Amino acid sequence: MKSATEYLWFETRQPREYINITPDVAEVVEKSGVQEGFVLVSAMHITAGLYVNDAEEGIIRDIDEMLERLAPKGPDYHHHRTGEQNADAHLKSLLIHHEVIVPITEGALDLGPWQQIYYAEFDGQRRKRVVVKVIGE
Amino acid sequence: MKSATEYLWFETRQPREYINITPDVAEVVEKSGVQEGFVLVSAMHITAGLYVNDAEEGIIRDIDEMLERLAPKGPDYHHHRTGEQNADAHLKSLLIHHEVIVPITEGALDLGPWQQIYYAEFDGQRRKRVVVKVIGE
Amino acid sequence: MKSATEYLWFETRQPREYINITPDVAEVVEKSGVQEGFVLVSAMHITAGLYVNDAEEGIIRDIDEMLERLAPKGPDYHHHRTGEQNADAHLKSLLIHHEVIVPITEGALDLGPWQQIYYAEFDGQRRKRVVVKVIGE
Repeated sequence: MKSATEYLWFETRQPREYINITPDVAEVVEKSGVQEGFVLVSAMHITAGLYVNDAEEGIIRDIDEMLERLAPKGPDYHHHRTGEQNADAHLKSLLIHHEVIVPITEGALDLGPWQQIYYAEFDGQRRKRVVVKVIGE
Repeated sequence: MKSATEYLWFETRQPREYINITPDVAEVVEKSGVQEGFVLVSAMHITAGLYVNDAEEGIIRDIDEMLERLAPKGPDYHHHRTGEQNADAHLKSLLIHHEVIVPITEGALDLGPWQQIYYAEFDGQRRKRVVVKVIGE
Repeated sequence: MKSATEYLWFETRQPREYINITPDVAEVVEKSGVQEGFVLVSAMHITAGLYVNDAEEGIIRDIDEMLERLAPKGPDYHHHRTGEQNADAHLKSLLIHHEVIVPITEGALDLGPWQQIYYAEFDGQRRKRVVVKVIGE
């Protein structure tokens, strides 16, 4: 069995941003030399997420608006008694999920034609990290 | 390490359908010969999902109604400026998630007694694909 | 390739409870001897979930309130025609997701500083089970 582990760093300009990291993940997979296996891409923070969907600006706005509708930014969260202001970012991260697993087949990401891997930042403007871990052979 | 990769194809009659694919996944696992490992089941389209839950018609309707309530079909999505009409299907896919991982123990799916693997189609009536990938030994 | 499989049992006092199981998962990983790999933590019931987020009482209440808002307890579910009363627990489980995968790096859970693994019980007061499965080397 082979494995490889790399960390991607992000510091977004906006509080919420959606970044296509498919090329970065593909590069980790290629460098690993793994032909058949899985790659896990997982946020290491509790206010960011990962998802697989379309690289189309309209749907990205729709995703953002849905998450804001289901887990709105606002003052009335219990978490804010700690002094934090970002409970909505935690909740958005839980709804979108904080990790994806992509199969590796014949040495490449085995994605459908429209599938792209996105990093979803919900509380940005500071340095945050994602782990990319490959196992296989 | 062993691995196996198969693709399941679907073409549903309805725009939205929920299909129990547990026997198909179990068959891929059995053919793989893997005794201890993981099986990843992942939609290759951005308007379908995978989940694990109950094979009971009532809960399937409840799931469908919840997803329609949280991500309703409708005309007012940014994504529709591309000419598409299926933004709700993208959003439903994100809420339910597009993949599941099931453990393989002693050569079989290690599921609880009521757990079944479902393919959730949100924009059907055309050919779509799921990847089933086993790794283990 | 190495693997290890253990089952954690829960019987909560409350119908809904959120339990930090990070030490339990870390112990399974340590005993497995796996240095590089993945650990899958997956509910074996269809009315419980797993997630990774903050060990802070306020955010746990916020998560619970969001899930109750998006999938409220109530009488009007199709699933209840079977005699069950717990459709909301199924739906909450689907929204939070029933599994997490955590990378193992240098023999330990490769989590960010605030990331903790939680078992989310949505229909408790009876014995329920989670599978923890490690693969790697």
